[in-house]
Amino acid sequence: MHKGPYVEDIREKQPVEGLYLVRDKNNGITKNGKPYIALNLSDKTGVIKGRVWDNAEKLDPGFDQGDVVCIKSFSVLYQGEMQLNIHAINRIGADDADPRDFMSTSRLDPEQCCADIQACIETISDPDLRRLLELVFEDERITSAFKQAPAAKSIHHDCLGGLIEHTLSVTRLVDMLAGHYETVNRDLVLAGAILHDIGKIQELSYERGFDYTDEGRLIGHIVLGMELITDTIRRLPDFPAKKAMLIKHMILSHHGQLEFGSPKRPKIPEALLLSYADDLDAKMFDFTQFIKKEQRPETNWTGYHRLFNRYLYTGVFEESPAPGAENGQPPQDV
Amino acid sequence: MHKGPYVEDIREKQPVEGLYLVRDKNNGITKNGKPYIALNLSDKTGVIKGRVWDNAEKLDPGFDQGDVVCIKSFSVLYQGEMQLNIHAINRIGADDADPRDFMSTSRLDPEQCCADIQACIETISDPDLRRLLELVFEDERITSAFKQAPAAKSIHHDCLGGLIEHTLSVTRLVDMLAGHYETVNRDLVLAGAILHDIGKIQELSYERGFDYTDEGRLIGHIVLGMELITDTIRRLPDFPAKKAMLIKHMILSHHGQLEFGSPKRPKIPEALLLSYADDLDAKMFDFTQFIKKEQRPETNWTGYHRLFNRYLYTGVFEESPAPGAENGQPPQDV
Amino acid sequence: MHKGPYVEDIREKQPVEGLYLVRDKNNGITKNGKPYIALNLSDKTGVIKGRVWDNAEKLDPGFDQGDVVCIKSFSVLYQGEMQLNIHAINRIGADDADPRDFMSTSRLDPEQCCADIQACIETISDPDLRRLLELVFEDERITSAFKQAPAAKSIHHDCLGGLIEHTLSVTRLVDMLAGHYETVNRDLVLAGAILHDIGKIQELSYERGFDYTDEGRLIGHIVLGMELITDTIRRLPDFPAKKAMLIKHMILSHHGQLEFGSPKRPKIPEALLLSYADDLDAKMFDFTQFIKKEQRPETNWTGYHRLFNRYLYTGVFEESPAPGAENGQPPQDV
Amino acid sequence: MHKGPYVEDIREKQPVEGLYLVRDKNNGITKNGKPYIALNLSDKTGVIKGRVWDNAEKLDPGFDQGDVVCIKSFSVLYQGEMQLNIHAINRIGADDADPRDFMSTSRLDPEQCCADIQACIETISDPDLRRLLELVFEDERITSAFKQAPAAKSIHHDCLGGLIEHTLSVTRLVDMLAGHYETVNRDLVLAGAILHDIGKIQELSYERGFDYTDEGRLIGHIVLGMELITDTIRRLPDFPAKKAMLIKHMILSHHGQLEFGSPKRPKIPEALLLSYADDLDAKMFDFTQFIKKEQRPETNWTGYHRLFNRYLYTGVFEESPAPGAENGQPPQDV
Amino acid sequence: MHKGPYVEDIREKQPVEGLYLVRDKNNGITKNGKPYIALNLSDKTGVIKGRVWDNAEKLDPGFDQGDVVCIKSFSVLYQGEMQLNIHAINRIGADDADPRDFMSTSRLDPEQCCADIQACIETISDPDLRRLLELVFEDERITSAFKQAPAAKSIHHDCLGGLIEHTLSVTRLVDMLAGHYETVNRDLVLAGAILHDIGKIQELSYERGFDYTDEGRLIGHIVLGMELITDTIRRLPDFPAKKAMLIKHMILSHHGQLEFGSPKRPKIPEALLLSYADDLDAKMFDFTQFIKKEQRPETNWTGYHRLFNRYLYTGVFEESPAPGAENGQPPQDV
Amino acid sequence: MHKGPYVEDIREKQPVEGLYLVRDKNNGITKNGKPYIALNLSDKTGVIKGRVWDNAEKLDPGFDQGDVVCIKSFSVLYQGEMQLNIHAINRIGADDADPRDFMSTSRLDPEQCCADIQACIETISDPDLRRLLELVFEDERITSAFKQAPAAKSIHHDCLGGLIEHTLSVTRLVDMLAGHYETVNRDLVLAGAILHDIGKIQELSYERGFDYTDEGRLIGHIVLGMELITDTIRRLPDFPAKKAMLIKHMILSHHGQLEFGSPKRPKIPEALLLSYADDLDAKMFDFTQFIKKEQRPETNWTGYHRLFNRYLYTGVFEESPAPGAENGQPPQDV
Repeated sequence: MHKGPYVEDIREKQPVEGLYLVRDKNNGITKNGKPYIALNLSDKTGVIKGRVWDNAEKLDPGFDQGDVVCIKSFSVLYQGEMQLNIHAINRIGADDADPRDFMSTSRLDPEQCCADIQACIETISDPDLRRLLELVFEDERITSAFKQAPAAKSIHHDCLGGLIEHTLSVTRLVDMLAGHYETVNRDLVLAGAILHDIGKIQELSYERGFDYTDEGRLIGHIVLGMELITDTIRRLPDFPAKKAMLIKHMILSHHGQLEFGSPKRPKIPEALLLSYADDLDAKMFDFTQFIKKEQRPETNWTGYHRLFNRYLYTGVFEESPAPGAENGQPPQDV
Repeated sequence: MHKGPYVEDIREKQPVEGLYLVRDKNNGITKNGKPYIALNLSDKTGVIKGRVWDNAEKLDPGFDQGDVVCIKSFSVLYQGEMQLNIHAINRIGADDADPRDFMSTSRLDPEQCCADIQACIETISDPDLRRLLELVFEDERITSAFKQAPAAKSIHHDCLGGLIEHTLSVTRLVDMLAGHYETVNRDLVLAGAILHDIGKIQELSYERGFDYTDEGRLIGHIVLGMELITDTIRRLPDFPAKKAMLIKHMILSHHGQLEFGSPKRPKIPEALLLSYADDLDAKMFDFTQFIKKEQRPETNWTGYHRLFNRYLYTGVFEESPAPGAENGQPPQDV
Repeated sequence: MHKGPYVEDIREKQPVEGLYLVRDKNNGITKNGKPYIALNLSDKTGVIKGRVWDNAEKLDPGFDQGDVVCIKSFSVLYQGEMQLNIHAINRIGADDADPRDFMSTSRLDPEQCCADIQACIETISDPDLRRLLELVFEDERITSAFKQAPAAKSIHHDCLGGLIEHTLSVTRLVDMLAGHYETVNRDLVLAGAILHDIGKIQELSYERGFDYTDEGRLIGHIVLGMELITDTIRRLPDFPAKKAMLIKHMILSHHGQLEFGSPKRPKIPEALLLSYADDLDAKMFDFTQFIKKEQRPETNWTGYHRLFNRYLYTGVFEESPAPGAENGQPPQDV
Repeated sequence: MHKGPYVEDIREKQPVEGLYLVRDKNNGITKNGKPYIALNLSDKTGVIKGRVWDNAEKLDPGFDQGDVVCIKSFSVLYQGEMQLNIHAINRIGADDADPRDFMSTSRLDPEQCCADIQACIETISDPDLRRLLELVFEDERITSAFKQAPAAKSIHHDCLGGLIEHTLSVTRLVDMLAGHYETVNRDLVLAGAILHDIGKIQELSYERGFDYTDEGRLIGHIVLGMELITDTIRRLPDFPAKKAMLIKHMILSHHGQLEFGSPKRPKIPEALLLSYADDLDAKMFDFTQFIKKEQRPETNWTGYHRLFNRYLYTGVFEESPAPGAENGQPPQDV
Repeated sequence: MHKGPYVEDIREKQPVEGLYLVRDKNNGITKNGKPYIALNLSDKTGVIKGRVWDNAEKLDPGFDQGDVVCIKSFSVLYQGEMQLNIHAINRIGADDADPRDFMSTSRLDPEQCCADIQACIETISDPDLRRLLELVFEDERITSAFKQAPAAKSIHHDCLGGLIEHTLSVTRLVDMLAGHYETVNRDLVLAGAILHDIGKIQELSYERGFDYTDEGRLIGHIVLGMELITDTIRRLPDFPAKKAMLIKHMILSHHGQLEFGSPKRPKIPEALLLSYADDLDAKMFDFTQFIKKEQRPETNWTGYHRLFNRYLYTGVFEESPAPGAENGQPPQDV
Repeated sequence: MHKGPYVEDIREKQPVEGLYLVRDKNNGITKNGKPYIALNLSDKTGVIKGRVWDNAEKLDPGFDQGDVVCIKSFSVLYQGEMQLNIHAINRIGADDADPRDFMSTSRLDPEQCCADIQACIETISDPDLRRLLELVFEDERITSAFKQAPAAKSIHHDCLGGLIEHTLSVTRLVDMLAGHYETVNRDLVLAGAILHDIGKIQELSYERGFDYTDEGRLIGHIVLGMELITDTIRRLPDFPAKKAMLIKHMILSHHGQLEFGSPKRPKIPEALLLSYADDLDAKMFDFTQFIKKEQRPETNWTGYHRLFNRYLYTGVFEESPAPGAENGQPPQDV
């Protein structure tokens, strides 16, 4: 079916017909006793509010949270916020929509990320570790999921392709750091970086919105990832037991602390380095995204960030030089 | 070789010749500049101090910590503590001594414990879980190690046979508790109890004293145990995926809290029950052992217990009247 | 007065007249400027929403939160949730209603629980402890309150009869555990279990909804319970001072940790056992109740549990097949 | 028996015969295999080391830690530290020594402290609270113990008379603070201050060194003190229940936090004030004592203070100029 | 412009015209789809709700949160709460209103507080510290801000003049305490108390409501205050380096703990005393204010206090007998 | 004076005369009652034990901890550990020894580090920040101290030149990271990295062993460093206030958390990045140094590391490539 206008393109006072993902659905009742439905609708370009003021009881059974729906509506602007008054809405079949239209996606191309990681694998000197990595990604189901999965349900890299974006970033970080700290075994820390979150392809579902799987909540991506590696190693007959033990330790300890869900803390320098790189990349992503999103003309401060437990200062960015200057060209006379 | 007198049988002022395990070895130098060696020697009945006052430099290379040694010595009593003044000492070959002579052993018979656990397995209704348990213990190497291993390097059940003693105790506890809380799935919680610490057969070495293996420190018994179960399930072709997930969750969550090394916290009642039973059994063992060991005539209090972070009261035990007396009858003349 | 239909029996589109407890009362104002009143009404079978859309200002002074009210209303179903549109409402006198009609009650019969506890008291060998327990429950005001009180304002066993239900459960647990750990003094741990929460009869008020008393908040059930025991012991002239000290210690330490409000931590095995049994029983009640209540067809997971700080898995329960079915046989026609 | 020279008066190279309390006794063995005994001996003026180099085995059974002993010895100075080489030592009977000779005592006169507290009681307006306080101290056993007990086994005010010194100090603090914060009920906070640690007369033993009693460890001074007050109130027939509840709350909450052993936290301003005054007085005592004791010419810093978890700066004190100099006048020629 | 009626003087059913500060402004939409604006308006006597039901879209751009507005409205009483239905509203210029009309102000006269602090400064013996304090307050901009600033954005002393009120209170407390603990250097602790929060004149903005400045959030009042003192000391040529170090330490450590934002913990008794006095004064202010504000006839308890994490008991205050009665005399007939 | 043999060059059974730093000095007394002195002596190549068995009382006043001493001694090997039996020892004047001979020094050349940092400064685009950095290092006293100071009293980089080694490493890390995270302001984060620990030149003394200064303990390097920057900025008339605020924030927040002594937590991405880089560099240094130092043939594990609270695995290193390869030569064909 035809996707219709993207959220970011919707303008005021126009009819809007198209396909959107139902993020949240809440039934309300007006003080006159009339039922209505409040929705958050989204596609990959953003989120928009929807309201079903009429025929709410009749339209209600036709769709649920998590569905992709086809709607007819009219856009209104209220207090600077766009809103769709909906008069027709119902779910469409799973095959009638492309999931990538409805969920936010990484700003990077997953295929390119994957190629970059493959290239990195080829630089690994240790033949056992290199072969292990190659074998993991020879499995098409793994590679396909790895390119599509988000890195989290919410918080950092919570977009399609987020897992591979984050993995590539951490891999590049540890590559730089392994150059800086020469005693670090580059092969081991690179292999650890590439595989550290591989279990997330089983921990998260991302077909229609992002959520945890049963396995994700009961076993968790750390152990799921380690099991995937164990399974792969089983197919490599002469894989040295010690290297297997060390790469498992890299995965198990990558959250750095027991209270963050790692059953073991880093006990080799490579594992320590990986845990810092992983944490730093997640925090920097979250920190800078939040500052970008919360830029507001009237203040130098974001709203309160619940996880960081603080307000962030947005004023540094405004220093960024005039357009054009970044490329070394003088600003135009305009 | 002949074991010689057990530690608990050594009396004052007699020659002592026999085999003992070197628990600790420290070199010292007297203020006169003369070297000596201070030892702790042990067998399964206890620990005794040893001192090499003469020829220390010559005898020093002949043995290390962790060796079983053959000694010639003379016993002296100083300040109520027995001590061996050693004039000859050297290590003996691994095959010349029976390890069970040198390490403390469970007060229970491991064979009987094993039979009790086997009997318990047969009461499990669920055919998948029962078959899983049977298959685990059909492996002679597993069962043999399971009967011999300690449950910890130190702290609770740190004796040969300690693992199976603790496992049986926890199994009995959850069986009682599953009867008390009827909604609990008895089969699942029993299977979890029997398998919860199975990874300790790989986490600990116990041939000559107790210590952690490399795998024990880098992977840990929780994940090692889960892998052992995964391996066994792989040999059960139609094992339901959901049951596999639940039994793994039981193992992974049995420490109850992330900060105690469980990568997942209990999310089903059976796992919650198991985590309490495991914790209670370890604490009760430690608590009551410490009180027994620290009974002293001059005070109602033990010394300071580092892990409990308190002094324990020893006075309750002394109340236990002679048998028969509790019911108001005078003790019999026997 | 006549109770009228129980909450769990109310069906759609019918007039409803009867007596209900006002759990919450909130005044609102519609966007048209018209006042209304939003209520939660309850009886022992459940909670239902009520709305006063008309004459809100006039009816408002006639009742408060905590009152039992007589209402006239009409039931409507909105979004699957029953709701009463109320046109008449006013409080009734304290004597016109039976409290047990309006608060949830234990699934167990308090009289039977009390008899079971009495029977347990008779199995205590120690004459001093047995006499102490008998004397406590000879006081009709204590026994009567003990049978009626809840175990908590909210959280676990928050129903009439909840205190005695929890007490009986903990008593049975420690009886089992005392059999398992033989060095434990059964008499002492049983006496502790039976008395551990006795102070809650003064800590909580439960005539009209559950709340804390002034004493409950300023002194607390741990110390109130200990004082009740001290008062009773005073009436037993030759009660041994040491036993008094130990039974007091059992009460004072039963929360296990200082930060949970125990002024002393367990220093005898009996107190350690009691603190585990008490904690386990509260947690298991809460855990399993929450799973039962939150069973939903569309997911294997409960909503977020604030105190456990996690989502719980509801999928284990659904496995329980019909009897007989587990062995692959069809259920018999019976 | 004759006390002999006080510790603070002992000089080098002289025979010392007299009575001292054995604080610590440790048996050692020289590298030549000769036993010796290392002691800390004390009287109210300080602590001194003692060594039994000869006949250690023979003299050993004649005394224990906690005994008052009669010794014959010779004083030597080694590395600036005085030490007694002992050739005769044995315990003396309980009646042969005055305890006040052997334990450190408050720098204040307990009788005067007691009189000051009595005077303070007379300023309390509330007749019930005043009568309660009077009745407590009419009991000669209470008053006598109150004047003699230490405030702690170690840490702050760990001297004979320390309890009443600390109590008077806290009482004066809250009197000042009640004047500063006018809404505070002075009567209640004064009564609370005077009684807050009264349970320490049962928590600590102080006949021969300071230690905890069984009750002290199993019940604790907070609850023991509250029970003493309950007992006293029982003898005041018309004592208002609410005042009893409030004064109990003052006692129970005076450690401020659950994790410091208070079963309830302050919920009235008077209790908050008392908890701060108590904490401040203990901390200031400890802080300033430590600085005085650790003044050393070569550094501005004390050694590491374990409880404060830091080093303290001793340099402020040295600034105190000679009297008169502060006002810019030169010190007089005197 | 004319202020108009104060919030505390507004009565029901009357036209209200005047100037108020917009504390919060939220746009809503009625279920009929009609926009409205919900406001909190305040002046120094309190806060009142305002609603713009008509012409919301037209009036909306005319004012923002933080503005002082001139309104025309009509007062209505709903459920005991006064509310203004607004038909005209727009912001006024900064110079048309006196800030002191619109923000709550200290119950004390800032001029008198300032005079009291000046008087206190004159009692300081140490000429360096006295001169430092004099020089700080000779700067008219500092003194003026010091008299006007609040002590916090919310929580304690969050009113105009709150900073100087709190500073005077802490100064008096440490003066009393320095008298009580004689080894304390009164000059140093007094200077510390007077200057401890001086950095708040830069940390907070208070022209139109209270908020943090950029410096306040990025540097903080502790370091800002220390810098102000450093700047002043620079103008005192012979100021002793050691005293400068000590007064800085007083400022830096006055929050007592690292986790409360002090980069150093108290290491001299004077700093310890100051940190207690500061904490006590803030807590007592908050505690007693909350109890006063939450006095309610139907209960002895306040609502839940988020920071103290508890409910507070309001019943002690009600005991305060009529004036005169405390001395046993009947109240006069007046 | 002549330095004499370096510690790392001392061999067994030879006379040793030379200059060494007294790290620790402890007086002991043999069981024969003969005094002796136990020393740790060091120079920049290591630490060695010294013993004064004869004439201890006479030699004792001639030197103290922290002195450089001239000794005459004889080397003995005992249990594989070298030890000097000393017969003459006395301190030498401050000018008679070069401090750099006696304290461990960075493996890097401080001059080269300084040149590298200078080169880095020249790459900063922002003229204000570049000028600030240039001005700081134009002060010869600062630069000289910066090249000499250690980064810590113990723990990481506790050697002469350690501060500049650590600073250069952190500077390089943030330069790499600023390239990786493009929205980060490279100039700001580089300036922050170069200056973050500059206060340590005042926090630590390092003339004769490493210790904290009075200022170091009472003010701390975070605030001392910020003050140094404030002082420098004061000399730059038009330095923008906002940049001053931001660079100060970088310094103040670089420990990342309040409980680690930062009075503010990072609120801009540049500060977050710096805090991670600083922490990572310290931890990696400590982690890898400990593993190198604790390599032991008989085990794959280090001893217990107190700060990391764990044992570290040393086995990864042994994989290090074949000999010869490290020097850039291809491995020989053997």
